[in-house]
Amino acid sequence: MRTRIEVPAESRFGPDNLPYGVFAPAGKDFRVGVRYGDQVIDLAATLDAPVFAAPELNAFLAKGPDRWREVRERVRELVDGEIDADAVYPLADVALRLPVRIGDYVDFYASIEHATNLGRMFRPDGDPLLPNWRYLPVGYHGRAGTVVVSGTDVVRPRGQRRTDSGTPDFGPALRLDIEAELGYVIGRGSELGVPVDIDEFADRVFGVALINDWSARDIQAWEYQPLGPFLGKSFATSMSPWITPLAALEAARIPLPDQSPAPLPYLRGAQHWGLDIDLTVVWNGQSVAYPPYARMYWSPAQMLAHLTANGASTRTGDLYASGTISGPASYERGSFIELSWGGSQPVRVNDQERTFLEDGDEVTITATAPGPRSARIGLGEVTGRIRPAR
Amino acid sequence: MRTRIEVPAESRFGPDNLPYGVFAPAGKDFRVGVRYGDQVIDLAATLDAPVFAAPELNAFLAKGPDRWREVRERVRELVDGEIDADAVYPLADVALRLPVRIGDYVDFYASIEHATNLGRMFRPDGDPLLPNWRYLPVGYHGRAGTVVVSGTDVVRPRGQRRTDSGTPDFGPALRLDIEAELGYVIGRGSELGVPVDIDEFADRVFGVALINDWSARDIQAWEYQPLGPFLGKSFATSMSPWITPLAALEAARIPLPDQSPAPLPYLRGAQHWGLDIDLTVVWNGQSVAYPPYARMYWSPAQMLAHLTANGASTRTGDLYASGTISGPASYERGSFIELSWGGSQPVRVNDQERTFLEDGDEVTITATAPGPRSARIGLGEVTGRIRPAR
Repeated sequence: MRTRIEVPAESRFGPDNLPYGVFAPAGKDFRVGVRYGDQVIDLAATLDAPVFAAPELNAFLAKGPDRWREVRERVRELVDGEIDADAVYPLADVALRLPVRIGDYVDFYASIEHATNLGRMFRPDGDPLLPNWRYLPVGYHGRAGTVVVSGTDVVRPRGQRRTDSGTPDFGPALRLDIEAELGYVIGRGSELGVPVDIDEFADRVFGVALINDWSARDIQAWEYQPLGPFLGKSFATSMSPWITPLAALEAARIPLPDQSPAPLPYLRGAQHWGLDIDLTVVWNGQSVAYPPYARMYWSPAQMLAHLTANGASTRTGDLYASGTISGPASYERGSFIELSWGGSQPVRVNDQERTFLEDGDEVTITATAPGPRSARIGLGEVTGRIRPAR
Repeated sequence: MRTRIEVPAESRFGPDNLPYGVFAPAGKDFRVGVRYGDQVIDLAATLDAPVFAAPELNAFLAKGPDRWREVRERVRELVDGEIDADAVYPLADVALRLPVRIGDYVDFYASIEHATNLGRMFRPDGDPLLPNWRYLPVGYHGRAGTVVVSGTDVVRPRGQRRTDSGTPDFGPALRLDIEAELGYVIGRGSELGVPVDIDEFADRVFGVALINDWSARDIQAWEYQPLGPFLGKSFATSMSPWITPLAALEAARIPLPDQSPAPLPYLRGAQHWGLDIDLTVVWNGQSVAYPPYARMYWSPAQMLAHLTANGASTRTGDLYASGTISGPASYERGSFIELSWGGSQPVRVNDQERTFLEDGDEVTITATAPGPRSARIGLGEVTGRIRPAR
């Protein structure tokens, strides 16, 4: 039986979005699907290609940009016409998992407001921005094995915490935080020894997902010198189950804010890859922040060019994230350490005061971008709830 | 036809060693093998188990310690008796590749002499050891995708280099260095949210490989604050093709040097996992340093307990390395930045002066440990040659 999927014109997951994910209908194996409205289209069942029968997007992503375009056009035709009813499942009835097998995970630090806010709090006596910050997109490697799909509970981590005495103690993190970020998924990898040119970005990166880079600030503050964040971050990073292809974000592309000093030549591209994406951070059901991605200092094309400038290879499924997205206004800050100014200015959430996360708290990050028509495009949300430390 | 492999009694790869690797005979697929003397035994051909027909050790490692013991005993019996001649290849005739598919790669900083030396050079005005160093094994995530097998050429990386003017320039790294390290390979992974107890070490870690963590000091010095090393390390990390099982290192186990202050409870184990392993660093054919692993401050069991204390999961094939191994004597330093004291005291190599690596230079790291009988055990060497920047 063939059917037509009806999606309201104002849906954020209409025909101009069509993000990819990996889902399992009840009692069946995981496979690749495309979200359309509140339905999921089974690509293995509708397109005759074994890459879609896999429990991860990697094989499809590795095919490269020509195939990505071809499949996107084919899915557009499917949703414009009639489709086999057996290949469509209500979103509410399927299980979702991490859409890609992630090789390496890198986290950048690309918001000048976020870096400045953290510099002010952590180094009150010095220049809030370190000397390298305006010359390169600062980044570091995170733990790929603990990236989890949205909806996975986050167990409060235990660890060594800095105390006022100068001697650490060990226990559950007391300053548990979020970082609202965008993540970029590598489609076609690149060879060892060969940097990726900045204008190759859209041929290499398949798409975008929302990321919550959970952070234990007390563990991080004690451990991070001189080699950077480690256990304060590695307990969990949540990722949206839906990857929106770059192709769906054409209408969101904008110039970057002014970069001064001018970037070195390998960080100068011909294309605009600023992105006009608006995020919302929801804490226990209440919207508490609206981070504006349009304000990010470094573009994702610059991040990729930098990441590979030394000849480092990339692999299909590698993930790199923007770092916390914060704007200049206080309600635009994408982490609770900024929203509560280091815990000194509690945030009001449903008639309760909050500085950092308490057990049972739930955080959901959503985002929208301009689409080619009137309806905005939605990124798949990323959500997680805090469970008590073991 | 059955044959007996003859190995001299003084061989470092005799019946008490038997390290695992992945090799391909001429014109055939990669498969799992065990090194015995200068021969490689094809495990897929001699033991009837499909896990050994794979081009990586992961499936075997995931079986866990009972199976590791069983196979080791079986191989001991094989080399004590006669073996199918078709299942034995001269080492010189086979290709070797990375023995494991690496999930996450973590690098520690566990030598107090190395950390002190670098602290003196990078922060001449402060305490060379930062306040956290004696409380936890400092570590960070490196790039798993650029771990390469010994023998792979290393292309000199390009990148932003710190200059005296305070403004960076971009070009080939001028202070290219090595770090002589030991790497530990996770056999049986651990679950998200559940720390690995310090005394579970030998049930989780399968074995040990030599690591050269190539480092571009000028790139690193400019980029590393505040999030740690990134492009100064991520262009290449070389790994020995042979993994020596922990079971072969029983005679090398020793108590750690004194730890003061006493470690927190989660870092206190009942077992000794100091290791009496002697390294040699060979620069263009000349031995230039003899790093003593016996001096390492933090044990690999402490590293694993720390790495998972926050609930981070581990996966079969994860690799964590010790950090540069340096002893108190100047000839015991495991990096050239230490041997040449930041480039100020050139090292004499074959009648030439060296501070950092020049194009065409070759570095080989070897190591031996006490065996249960008179012959010492050898770890598989790790070697690499510098090619000019592109």
